[in-house]
Amino acid sequence: MRPASEDDILAIVSRYFPAGHPSLLLDRGDDCAVLRPCGPLAVTTDIFAEDAHFRRRYFTAFDIGWKALAVNISDVGSSGAKPSGFSIGLTLTGQEDTAWLEGFCEGMKALTERFDMAISGGDLARSPLLNVCVTAWGELPESLPRGLRRSAAQEGDAIFLVGRVGLARLGLSVLEEAGNEEDIAAAKAHWPDACAQHLRPMPLAFEGMKLGLFAIEHNLQDRLGLMDLSDGLARDLPRLLNSRKSGLGADIVLEEGSLHPEIVRHCSHKGMDAAQFAFEGGEDYALLGSCPAEAWPELEALLSGFSGPFSRLGTVRRGALALNGKATSAAGFDHFSA
Amino acid sequence: MRPASEDDILAIVSRYFPAGHPSLLLDRGDDCAVLRPCGPLAVTTDIFAEDAHFRRRYFTAFDIGWKALAVNISDVGSSGAKPSGFSIGLTLTGQEDTAWLEGFCEGMKALTERFDMAISGGDLARSPLLNVCVTAWGELPESLPRGLRRSAAQEGDAIFLVGRVGLARLGLSVLEEAGNEEDIAAAKAHWPDACAQHLRPMPLAFEGMKLGLFAIEHNLQDRLGLMDLSDGLARDLPRLLNSRKSGLGADIVLEEGSLHPEIVRHCSHKGMDAAQFAFEGGEDYALLGSCPAEAWPELEALLSGFSGPFSRLGTVRRGALALNGKATSAAGFDHFSA
Repeated sequence: MRPASEDDILAIVSRYFPAGHPSLLLDRGDDCAVLRPCGPLAVTTDIFAEDAHFRRRYFTAFDIGWKALAVNISDVGSSGAKPSGFSIGLTLTGQEDTAWLEGFCEGMKALTERFDMAISGGDLARSPLLNVCVTAWGELPESLPRGLRRSAAQEGDAIFLVGRVGLARLGLSVLEEAGNEEDIAAAKAHWPDACAQHLRPMPLAFEGMKLGLFAIEHNLQDRLGLMDLSDGLARDLPRLLNSRKSGLGADIVLEEGSLHPEIVRHCSHKGMDAAQFAFEGGEDYALLGSCPAEAWPELEALLSGFSGPFSRLGTVRRGALALNGKATSAAGFDHFSA
Repeated sequence: MRPASEDDILAIVSRYFPAGHPSLLLDRGDDCAVLRPCGPLAVTTDIFAEDAHFRRRYFTAFDIGWKALAVNISDVGSSGAKPSGFSIGLTLTGQEDTAWLEGFCEGMKALTERFDMAISGGDLARSPLLNVCVTAWGELPESLPRGLRRSAAQEGDAIFLVGRVGLARLGLSVLEEAGNEEDIAAAKAHWPDACAQHLRPMPLAFEGMKLGLFAIEHNLQDRLGLMDLSDGLARDLPRLLNSRKSGLGADIVLEEGSLHPEIVRHCSHKGMDAAQFAFEGGEDYALLGSCPAEAWPELEALLSGFSGPFSRLGTVRRGALALNGKATSAAGFDHFSA
């Protein structure tokens, strides 16, 4: 099929994302769209770039549209905000046909419908590689004017996890190893949850919003810490604890029983430590938080009402990070694409 | 000099853009920044990509930082909003050193200082080509809740231009022809205003804001049309007039005396029609507007107070577009990068 023209692309976008979302005072099509925020506005920008964040070999167009938006929604949700809109800077190679663009829009639309978000517009350009740069925003309650933030932790606080860790890393690993279409299909069949978590992570934005309301209700706006896990527990936990400045660490326990069976199976087969594998993780898009120990029982009750898994990982302490009783440290690699 | 690491990059950004801008309730460094918009928020996204929008051969790092932000400020200003912040998705090749990144930040900072804008954060990735995706926003007065828009024109309205057309096209043309550093220096020496307009266009955001206030004052919120010229008069005028749906055209006059001397000199040398050259233009980042004919004298008085050039280009009429008395049509090429 022939590559889509600029007019084709705009027509497809209009078909999937009709005008008239109530969060916009003026829709796309002019020099600017106009929002009417009803409170403080949480804003984030994440790039989703070919070969840095995804491979076309095993990401469908739907997966690319989904994940480019999902990683941004995850940031908005982890601040406690209600995701409400986004804009997109889309760099195409010029080879994408109508079917590809429809798949891409379908992937985004699945999430905009779930979270009731508007697309305010964007821009198109050409480049040898696909690059999707999304800026997303969401509204915060007036009584949570700076959102839920990292760096709220104090010694003795509980550390908790909403969602799972390590699964996306496993998905990445088995998909990267898959050489051809048959291998990719086999990887998806053998590691269905891991591949799904890597290709189409579900952002935990409803969970983040509920945690924001919990913080307001319990007057914990500055004591409930929250972030989304994009670089893995090993790298992100020191960020949550502001370790470099605060000198805080934590005792973390990841029991094998709490890990996803696909991780356990994989690590057992490869002779790897499953807890360490999950701890290093990456692209988990789970929520990592801290709260005063005395608030934990009530928070636990809230988390028990969520549809997905959660766990108390451990306790904040002075000093280094320990996983399952052994000292550990954050992986220190430097790259632009994490 | 060695390529900058991610930590180097963040340190440079922090040096040029210190935290604490009053438009942010929460600064960058967390999952989201938080804005406190004081009114309706005009939002725009523009990609500025290597080889699609600029060449490193003749764009300095300063020029790239400047123009990537300038084209977004131009959109915000043309809606009548006060630019207040932006986020950036920056894809680097990995070869950029500290000096390059400092130049890039200096180029952006020259504009953030002029317009008092905050950088709310962003993302970094790696790719074989540089790609700068900026999302910028600005606040609109409550009495201009949808901003100044295209498509306000009616038959008989005046069409006006703030700024110049054709100069950036000339700059592009002479810089593209320059083969080596010596040629580039010569092009800049012979065509200084044209090259400057291509490399560092000054967005007319203060002018746009004043036009917004004029519209409010004269109750012309829905009758003063405005857009910024990014694709040239020939392509953008039909957009201002909504020609495809409205059937409106215009009689446009571009007198040689109103064109920049460098355009006249270039076209005379090449045997080209200078008015047609300027009309086709491109990347002008001038403001193109329409207003009721009876409002023109007062608008003219306002424009006379601006520091730069302005002109009344003509009058809206039914039918086609005519330039200097001859029928003309918009260039119909399709690309993703205009």
